[in-house]
Amino acid sequence: MANTLYQYSTISALLSGICTEGADAATLLDKGTYGIGTFSDLDGEVTVMNSRAYHFPSTATATVRPLSPTDTIPFAMLTTFQPTNTVPLPTTTTSEKVTLKSLSELLTPILDTNKNAFLSLRLTTTFAWLTTRIIPRRRSPEETLADCASRQKVTNHGRSKGTLFGFWSPAYTVGIGVPGFHLHFLSEDGEKGGHVLDFEVAVEHDEDSEGEGEGKGWEVAVLREVRLELPDTEEFGRVDVGAPTAEMVRGAEGGKKYLASMKSVPERTSYF
Amino acid sequence: MANTLYQYSTISALLSGICTEGADAATLLDKGTYGIGTFSDLDGEVTVMNSRAYHFPSTATATVRPLSPTDTIPFAMLTTFQPTNTVPLPTTTTSEKVTLKSLSELLTPILDTNKNAFLSLRLTTTFAWLTTRIIPRRRSPEETLADCASRQKVTNHGRSKGTLFGFWSPAYTVGIGVPGFHLHFLSEDGEKGGHVLDFEVAVEHDEDSEGEGEGKGWEVAVLREVRLELPDTEEFGRVDVGAPTAEMVRGAEGGKKYLASMKSVPERTSYF
Repeated sequence: MANTLYQYSTISALLSGICTEGADAATLLDKGTYGIGTFSDLDGEVTVMNSRAYHFPSTATATVRPLSPTDTIPFAMLTTFQPTNTVPLPTTTTSEKVTLKSLSELLTPILDTNKNAFLSLRLTTTFAWLTTRIIPRRRSPEETLADCASRQKVTNHGRSKGTLFGFWSPAYTVGIGVPGFHLHFLSEDGEKGGHVLDFEVAVEHDEDSEGEGEGKGWEVAVLREVRLELPDTEEFGRVDVGAPTAEMVRGAEGGKKYLASMKSVPERTSYF
Repeated sequence: MANTLYQYSTISALLSGICTEGADAATLLDKGTYGIGTFSDLDGEVTVMNSRAYHFPSTATATVRPLSPTDTIPFAMLTTFQPTNTVPLPTTTTSEKVTLKSLSELLTPILDTNKNAFLSLRLTTTFAWLTTRIIPRRRSPEETLADCASRQKVTNHGRSKGTLFGFWSPAYTVGIGVPGFHLHFLSEDGEKGGHVLDFEVAVEHDEDSEGEGEGKGWEVAVLREVRLELPDTEEFGRVDVGAPTAEMVRGAEGGKKYLASMKSVPERTSYF
């Protein structure tokens, strides 16, 4: 069903090192047209855009490969994306820049009346710059998402055309997913991408383009139906998974470490 | 689908005072044959057993009434219960008593290999005693589940025949539901019941009875499919819902206050 959030496993499981076993990529792709996820043993980032699944691996020489139907996916969030709201990008150079930090403010009209639902969101435009990370494959079965995040590979992209897709999740879902925004990027040529740490929309972004979603600004859907599938795997049954704090999740998602190196740290805690 | 957990709204919403609006009881009863929940404005406890829904109100003179199809339910957890595991009750008087405190130990064979899934569980037997609470209807729109829990009506039942039904939820679901055991009781005559604070199975419980589930001990199913429906209501969209701690949830579910008055406090924190 359109705009249902389908999720496989939980962020708390990744934080407890449950990330070797998982679902077949083919099974997951039946659950939605857009989505984000990771790969077995945290070997990189998975991004689904328009029913095509891209894997940005951490170990291979290639920077991107199409996901194979038999690949093992330990965590994913997918939705059949049918945007119901559109939030235009500011069109003058005097407006505040559209970055991850200002995104909550830009989406205030939607967030203020849907404080506790999930959002799916997409933006296809020209970016002045983006910063992405690729999570590195774990070195031992003891390593968790947080361990691997401390070795994440950060890439600074210059001016780029492409698409952001991801979710905004409410604070109370901290044990399940990533509270706040969790976005992945795919460049227009399908060659670059990953988990987004920050971005800035180009001032002279093209409002007249005609690609899918291009020029429309942020396209958003409110998600109130969630289907959570818990892994029927040995490791998910065996390992103790605790209730993580928002700080733990943000740290593992690249927020804390990355932001600590930036000049301005967001005041609100819901960005990552 | 059998043994899918269907949940409407979240415990964090109740803790934020989101409990006036909700789903029609008729809609919810399509989602499962067994379940637990509360009533609009927290006016009592709702228990679904064998597709019949019982409301133990806090304000009416009657102690129990059948749920009406148009009643408003702000929170519920339901499942089409098809037990896949059975854990017999100890049959000798030298065994440890079967109470809420010892339940984790009794279910160890299941919990130790399903540490992070949900369990649904049912027990029909004779109890030496049970303690239940009825949550009182809130007095103002500002009151939350925690406020009302501080005024909860506790009933000590003597020797009783009846059924316990409820769920065990993993720790990481603290923002969504009630980590640990969350059980409701219904007496054999359908007249008494509520949210269970503690119980003790009678030593001479009848292993030869032939009612549904009777004499079978604990009947359990492992739930890995969760369907969470978030309310499409004004209050759910407007009120800020934070991420509660396990302590906050346990307190509101009657654990902290009640246990503080008991001689022995469980060492493990996952009972309520």
